Amino acid sequence: MALDATQVDQKALFDWLCRMGDNALILGHRTSEWCGHGPVLEEDIALANTALDLIGHTQMWLGLAGEVEGAGRTADNLAYLRDAMQFRNVKLVELPNGDIGQTIMREFLFDAFHFEMLTALVASADARVAEIAAKALKEVAYQFDRSSDLVVRLGDGTAESHDRMQAALEHFWPYTGEMFVADAVDEAMAQAGIAPALSEIESRWDTLVSETLAEATLVCPERRADVHTGGKQGRHTEHLGYILAEMQFLQRAYPGAEW
Amino acid sequence: MALDATQVDQKALFDWLCRMGDNALILGHRTSEWCGHGPVLEEDIALANTALDLIGHTQMWLGLAGEVEGAGRTADNLAYLRDAMQFRNVKLVELPNGDIGQTIMREFLFDAFHFEMLTALVASADARVAEIAAKALKEVAYQFDRSSDLVVRLGDGTAESHDRMQAALEHFWPYTGEMFVADAVDEAMAQAGIAPALSEIESRWDTLVSETLAEATLVCPERRADVHTGGKQGRHTEHLGYILAEMQFLQRAYPGAEW
Repeated sequence: MALDATQVDQKALFDWLCRMGDNALILGHRTSEWCGHGPVLEEDIALANTALDLIGHTQMWLGLAGEVEGAGRTADNLAYLRDAMQFRNVKLVELPNGDIGQTIMREFLFDAFHFEMLTALVASADARVAEIAAKALKEVAYQFDRSSDLVVRLGDGTAESHDRMQAALEHFWPYTGEMFVADAVDEAMAQAGIAPALSEIESRWDTLVSETLAEATLVCPERRADVHTGGKQGRHTEHLGYILAEMQFLQRAYPGAEW
Repeated sequence: MALDATQVDQKALFDWLCRMGDNALILGHRTSEWCGHGPVLEEDIALANTALDLIGHTQMWLGLAGEVEGAGRTADNLAYLRDAMQFRNVKLVELPNGDIGQTIMREFLFDAFHFEMLTALVASADARVAEIAAKALKEVAYQFDRSSDLVVRLGDGTAESHDRMQAALEHFWPYTGEMFVADAVDEAMAQAGIAPALSEIESRWDTLVSETLAEATLVCPERRADVHTGGKQGRHTEHLGYILAEMQFLQRAYPGAEW
């Protein structure tokens, strides 16, 4: 059921677009931190490419967010000149990388969500959203293939790599719930047919993740009530501030500077 | 021989004051990173106090630098709005903290220099410099007592703590030379009687450091020619950029904000 996009609360749409863009931006930044530090050259390059893809998605999502807001802010303005409380990413993506096993586990947990979300968004009632989703989906499908493959290889690898991956899974698990806790913004988007209901994505995510974890010989933790929420509403961990300090330095110190 | 301060090249004096202020500022920032992370509560508090003392010295040195420059810049402007290439600290103080043993070793190596430098500056031909030195010296004498005491306790401690302190000493050693490599600025200050000749400070530092290291059962590395210089002239390691990104975020994001 395609609705007229003008019927939708534009403030909610802006917020929702920021969530999409900020998830990609912050995970992209975390991934870029591996540049030059990867455990093997091929992995280093793969991580750098993943980071670049995610930053590309950010430009599309935040570009549209600026358009919807209609206040003249560009994707760059939104990325480089907002402070932590205006960021809308889930906490999962802002947590520190940890070792390469943790980095891959976090990417996998997010990729599975990202993949299912974009797959659904290709049929969005908002043509602009559908178009961005179609472009991003190709890359995210590849990212999910890669991260799930590595989760299996490391989980079903040596005793050491297995234990580290299990620990990584348990470390990030309490942060996965936030992706599926719907608030008024998510409900407005679902009602307008712009985005899927998060409960649908959750059940597909559950299937996708449990299949991979089983193959990786890892034990999927139980669903818990005490998930860490708040990121989507702008209440972040201390880690986001440090990311922004580093990421935004150039634009803050040299306002308006361009490449 | 007290000279009229107006006879001194004010640009060189400004640079030299920035060196004093930036050393205190950057070491103070590094020290503050331990806040809440100290290995024992008493040490955590001691490090936080050291950081506060150093930031206090920074305010005095950079305050005078701004006055000498005469362009209306305050200590805050200089601390929060210069970019890395305008910073004049030695590289030794910008290196990452490492473990607590490394942190203490670096502090000790700098404290010994700082203590001898301030002791000499109390007799500066510039009354303003002499006054700041007298105030800072009391705190730096205490800092040196503390760090040299800890170097002895850890160096002459367990096999593990001894080995770590020896490794820390060797890690930082190639960065100590920069404190004593005089350039035109240092020479102008020495000639005007504002600051001591660095060669004098070097020989006192050598004595002070070797005595403590001997007591700590640590082997003093040989003096080497390949010291890491450049920080005093604004050519820094990559680490300084990350320090500034974090340290300057608030003023960059909210220009002119005050407590």
